[in-house]
Amino acid sequence: MTTTRQGRLAARPSGWPKRSDWAFTEEAVGEPADGQVLVKVSHLSLDPAMRGWMNDGKSYIPPVVIGEVMRAGGVGEVLATKHPGFKVGDPVTGTFGVQQYAISDGKGMRKVDTRFAPLPTYLGVLGAPGMTAYFGLLDIGKPQPGETVVVSGAAGAVGAVVCQIAKIKGCRVVGIAGGAEKCKYLTDVLHCDAAIDYKNDDLKAGLKKHCPDGIHVYFDNVGGEILDACLGRIALHARIIICGAISQYNSTTPPKGPANYLSLLVNRATMTGMVVFDYAGRYGEAAKEIAGWMAAGKLVHKEDVVGGGIDAFPETLLKLFTGENLGKLVLAL
Amino acid sequence: MTTTRQGRLAARPSGWPKRSDWAFTEEAVGEPADGQVLVKVSHLSLDPAMRGWMNDGKSYIPPVVIGEVMRAGGVGEVLATKHPGFKVGDPVTGTFGVQQYAISDGKGMRKVDTRFAPLPTYLGVLGAPGMTAYFGLLDIGKPQPGETVVVSGAAGAVGAVVCQIAKIKGCRVVGIAGGAEKCKYLTDVLHCDAAIDYKNDDLKAGLKKHCPDGIHVYFDNVGGEILDACLGRIALHARIIICGAISQYNSTTPPKGPANYLSLLVNRATMTGMVVFDYAGRYGEAAKEIAGWMAAGKLVHKEDVVGGGIDAFPETLLKLFTGENLGKLVLAL
Repeated sequence: MTTTRQGRLAARPSGWPKRSDWAFTEEAVGEPADGQVLVKVSHLSLDPAMRGWMNDGKSYIPPVVIGEVMRAGGVGEVLATKHPGFKVGDPVTGTFGVQQYAISDGKGMRKVDTRFAPLPTYLGVLGAPGMTAYFGLLDIGKPQPGETVVVSGAAGAVGAVVCQIAKIKGCRVVGIAGGAEKCKYLTDVLHCDAAIDYKNDDLKAGLKKHCPDGIHVYFDNVGGEILDACLGRIALHARIIICGAISQYNSTTPPKGPANYLSLLVNRATMTGMVVFDYAGRYGEAAKEIAGWMAAGKLVHKEDVVGGGIDAFPETLLKLFTGENLGKLVLAL
Repeated sequence: MTTTRQGRLAARPSGWPKRSDWAFTEEAVGEPADGQVLVKVSHLSLDPAMRGWMNDGKSYIPPVVIGEVMRAGGVGEVLATKHPGFKVGDPVTGTFGVQQYAISDGKGMRKVDTRFAPLPTYLGVLGAPGMTAYFGLLDIGKPQPGETVVVSGAAGAVGAVVCQIAKIKGCRVVGIAGGAEKCKYLTDVLHCDAAIDYKNDDLKAGLKKHCPDGIHVYFDNVGGEILDACLGRIALHARIIICGAISQYNSTTPPKGPANYLSLLVNRATMTGMVVFDYAGRYGEAAKEIAGWMAAGKLVHKEDVVGGGIDAFPETLLKLFTGENLGKLVLAL
């Protein structure tokens, strides 16, 4: 009998999640019932949004219940199936949770093509982060050729895709990230027109220098002071996409509101929140276009695959918040 | 020779404007040159935005220069004219400044019809406040029948028109104002479905009670804690119109940013800034529709006309910020 090791939410964290906020359990792997599949999970997706799912309260998705297996996206292979849509050996992606084996009814699960890209890529540029970048930038940001697009968290899973799509669309792109290595990646690999190292550079001066005509589209992954600095530099009719606020997720005080929000009035600008799930019906359209750009060599991707298995989940998650990862953070099981 | 008394900006205020921030001067009234008209100003418009025009720095309109006649909208009568578009005796509205007589080249000036409404009404519901309400609510807010519209500063010049247009459009309308008298005005005269007295009621509880399905459109004139409370109660796909932030204009510390702004993300909502001047080309369309509602008895208006002439300008302006006025605040000269 095979057992599955699982990471469960043991307590709601205050501030940074601690190891004691998690419990690790093992249970027997069941057989799929009619309409179900059994998946062996090979890689877990680590996403900033997970921190929000650990909190109680109303949000865009219900919180993870204490004692439940932690919600997580993953990729893997079908081991057994009683579902007409999947056969044994199919490579798949879905919300499998922090566990080695998952039973799924197929809902939200889809087959992927490992001839085109390896499994972890379907957690990054061909997964939720890629979809977020695509719909957030194009549907909400509506960038026009020649406009200046600024991206925070630009070396992260979402940000890196936003930067590249904005370049493909003929925009001037300025990426914001922490540290010289990430900034070099932004300019040398992602072909950003400029990069600002918010940890070491003067952010306001950098925005002034690199956005002489103001910011037309700002894609915000971080919130806090960076959002405020960008608000202070927007152009007339600017569009701000609120995709996340990683700088605020572990705060034990209420989030810092953007003091410069009246710049929206002065500049007749718009700030819009987005949740990628709303675009689920159009993922195919985005994946096809992104895959085309990848095949044409116009869009590169990077997964930061960390080893260690289920038990390494707590510390690996924290890398997102310390800013250690570059590219899509993935845990190999 | 006639002289004109003028209120000039003497110093940039810190916090609440003081009488010493103004200088009162007199000068001879000139003759209009070719293409100009001489207007005798009968009433001045007092607007929250004036506080912003007194500050230095980039905004949607250049600041008033120290020593200049203070910028102000007004209404009056043409006394002399060398402009083909205006004749002696024409009732007119324009940006005449804080003075008894003004020379104008006709730019931004228009004739009004005093048979339809008295002059001060053209500073309120048929002037910039009415236009602001009309375009902000309808073009940006896009309210649908049955939706809940919340309006702050609801008993003010803009807010009162927003409340009534929202009712005309079949919405449920909740007005927020300070004090029992204003709240009674909101429900009894403007026919709001509910009023919340932010000075005496529990604002959050009031929003919860009166907006059981959340807020679909929030028209914000005030900023600060009221904006934050409304953000905390928005519905999915809500539209927030940032029209002003009167609670912040006299603050000597940086404005308080809306800590609940991530509610935009959770609810896929939009916050958009507006400046009424952008709609100047469409004022006729709005004025015609508003006048139709007035004639049909569907839209009432109230001007709070204060006497005292030019020298009463400093203290009259402050009534906007203390919340003493109900309806459109106007200074009679």
